[in-house]
Amino acid sequence: MPRIAGLLVATLFLSSLAAQAQDESPPRFEFSSLQHEYVAERVAGDLSQPVAIEFLPDGKALVGQRNLGIVSVIDFSDGSRKDVTGLPKLAVYSDAGIHDLELHPDFADNGWVYVSYSVGEEIHSSVALDRFHLDGTRASDQQRLFTADAYTEEAYHQGGRIGFHEGHVYLSLGDRQHREMSQDNSNHAGTIVRLLADGKVPDDNPFVGVKAERGEDPRPEIWSSGHRNPQGLAFHPETGELWSHEHGPRGGDELNRVTRGGNYGWPTISFGLEYDGGPIGMGITRKEGMEQPAWVWVPSIAPSDLLIYTGDAFPGWKGSFFTGSLAKTHLNRLVLREGSVVAEERLANNVLGRIRSLAVDRRGLIYLGSDTGTIWRISPLP
Amino acid sequence: MPRIAGLLVATLFLSSLAAQAQDESPPRFEFSSLQHEYVAERVAGDLSQPVAIEFLPDGKALVGQRNLGIVSVIDFSDGSRKDVTGLPKLAVYSDAGIHDLELHPDFADNGWVYVSYSVGEEIHSSVALDRFHLDGTRASDQQRLFTADAYTEEAYHQGGRIGFHEGHVYLSLGDRQHREMSQDNSNHAGTIVRLLADGKVPDDNPFVGVKAERGEDPRPEIWSSGHRNPQGLAFHPETGELWSHEHGPRGGDELNRVTRGGNYGWPTISFGLEYDGGPIGMGITRKEGMEQPAWVWVPSIAPSDLLIYTGDAFPGWKGSFFTGSLAKTHLNRLVLREGSVVAEERLANNVLGRIRSLAVDRRGLIYLGSDTGTIWRISPLP
Repeated sequence: MPRIAGLLVATLFLSSLAAQAQDESPPRFEFSSLQHEYVAERVAGDLSQPVAIEFLPDGKALVGQRNLGIVSVIDFSDGSRKDVTGLPKLAVYSDAGIHDLELHPDFADNGWVYVSYSVGEEIHSSVALDRFHLDGTRASDQQRLFTADAYTEEAYHQGGRIGFHEGHVYLSLGDRQHREMSQDNSNHAGTIVRLLADGKVPDDNPFVGVKAERGEDPRPEIWSSGHRNPQGLAFHPETGELWSHEHGPRGGDELNRVTRGGNYGWPTISFGLEYDGGPIGMGITRKEGMEQPAWVWVPSIAPSDLLIYTGDAFPGWKGSFFTGSLAKTHLNRLVLREGSVVAEERLANNVLGRIRSLAVDRRGLIYLGSDTGTIWRISPLP
Repeated sequence: MPRIAGLLVATLFLSSLAAQAQDESPPRFEFSSLQHEYVAERVAGDLSQPVAIEFLPDGKALVGQRNLGIVSVIDFSDGSRKDVTGLPKLAVYSDAGIHDLELHPDFADNGWVYVSYSVGEEIHSSVALDRFHLDGTRASDQQRLFTADAYTEEAYHQGGRIGFHEGHVYLSLGDRQHREMSQDNSNHAGTIVRLLADGKVPDDNPFVGVKAERGEDPRPEIWSSGHRNPQGLAFHPETGELWSHEHGPRGGDELNRVTRGGNYGWPTISFGLEYDGGPIGMGITRKEGMEQPAWVWVPSIAPSDLLIYTGDAFPGWKGSFFTGSLAKTHLNRLVLREGSVVAEERLANNVLGRIRSLAVDRRGLIYLGSDTGTIWRISPLP
């Protein structure tokens, strides 16, 4: 029975593709791995850097196209798409644009969608968090919740992943290619900030009311610091722990378990090297008062998005940490035990392009947004 | 200066090869990695499965040729070799032969060499530990220290790695392809045993004097159990911890920190699967009273030999755990922090053949014995 259903879906899907396809890659690939045989099927195409995939209550998905600044609603059952109207033009330049989308946990009741994106101009840019009401494909009531005090003349290392947990919204922010800013908590660069859902600062943030011994006081929005360019953020569905990964220098991409007030060391400590091979900072990998990563990808994979899988479709992958790899073009799977990584597996290696975003539907099927402009759905083969 | 010396060595080495070379692969490969650029140079050839490389006080090396049952003394400065005489013919068949060589820590004074190897016949085989005096290339005074009560009609899964620590000698033993034997401590299959240097049983072994509630009593030689096919064993030079890795089923190769009396779970728990893809045993990966691995290679790499590096030649690799990969033909490097693996790097990938043995010389250069019959020396490039 599952096999027949799968074939039916594939047939419908292929006929819809025939009408609209512009992607030239085949629409279907089969793979094997340790625990599962699986198939990747193209369920949407002709996108540009699909950076965020968020399922709506009706089963359609909200998709952010990073370097177009467009938010779309896509029906993966037929690949049809409508762009959201009523959003102002978002800043789009080089490494910037939309960074993430996230539905409020009570979206079904309140209709709030959160979006992080670049603000300012290419030579004077930062990252902001807005929310807006979404009704069908119409946006309204857009509100600015937070603008990072992390303006630099570089358009890179913006971070920008959003996560919700227990009434709070978290936002990751890159070092803006001014690494020294990551160890200076009087700005927001290289931090993860924590806000109430309306953008206000929670009273119990670690730096609320803290006075600097010298220089400017730390920003009360900061939850953790010493990050480089965090483009993955997820709360563990079972433990409630916050996990984040970040692009490091050459060889220094890190996965971190993020704790309240933790300093993740960049650029003082790092497993990576300068791109010319020289040491970073003091060339050390640990220091008192700075946190150690749970995992370092060597060589770097350029991780994007983070999904802690608890779906039913792939029982062998329950609890796994999935990350898209931009540079090494695969779906990266880490197996953890008591907070330590005990295994790494590389799935769909070198086939689906630079994997930029991840999502899971109610059935537990996994969706990958690729820089080829495609969204792939991963289903188990019977 | 190091460059000139390196070129001189290479020249000498090449001329010696010209006289005797039968290997057809190029004698030199350069590689880059995160922390080090390095070169692999062939320093010995025309061997058969060099399973163990042990440096002698005079700088020459004792090399065991697994499936020939021959122990040789090789001078890596010119590739010259003399076979050790006075050793009886060792049992050689299919997956069996010499498993390891190890010098007594006081070898310079007492001249004892320890050797593990297959005993019996192909259809009735086990593993034994002997020692003999070595004087130049002449062996004498061969003594049987231990014969594993692990006879089966299969010649596979023999384990056989030797390690010394604080006056004790340890020997790893495979499950002999009778997996149920690994959870039955009334035999030695699937265990690591611990002996005094003369083969006697230490009083403080975990099962000394222990009586079984039913069935036969556990063997007093056993230090740990529940192993599958451990072909790597090393004591950490700084912490004194015992580490071992083992060939698992499909996808279940493990690295374990081995503790006194620990049960490593095979075949009750495993991260791997049957080769046909089905679950192992109960299909679970953890159980009360059984130890969790520190690392699982997915997919399997077929690990051979284990070297915890503390040399000076490669400062960026200090503390790394090196393992040869037979199936994936690379030098596997794991980085650990507080007992957890935080990074994996694959060196010399798919170039040097099936890496079966590892050693390090006084300068910190690394030697790889490959099933191509070659011993490669790894040196840093300036």
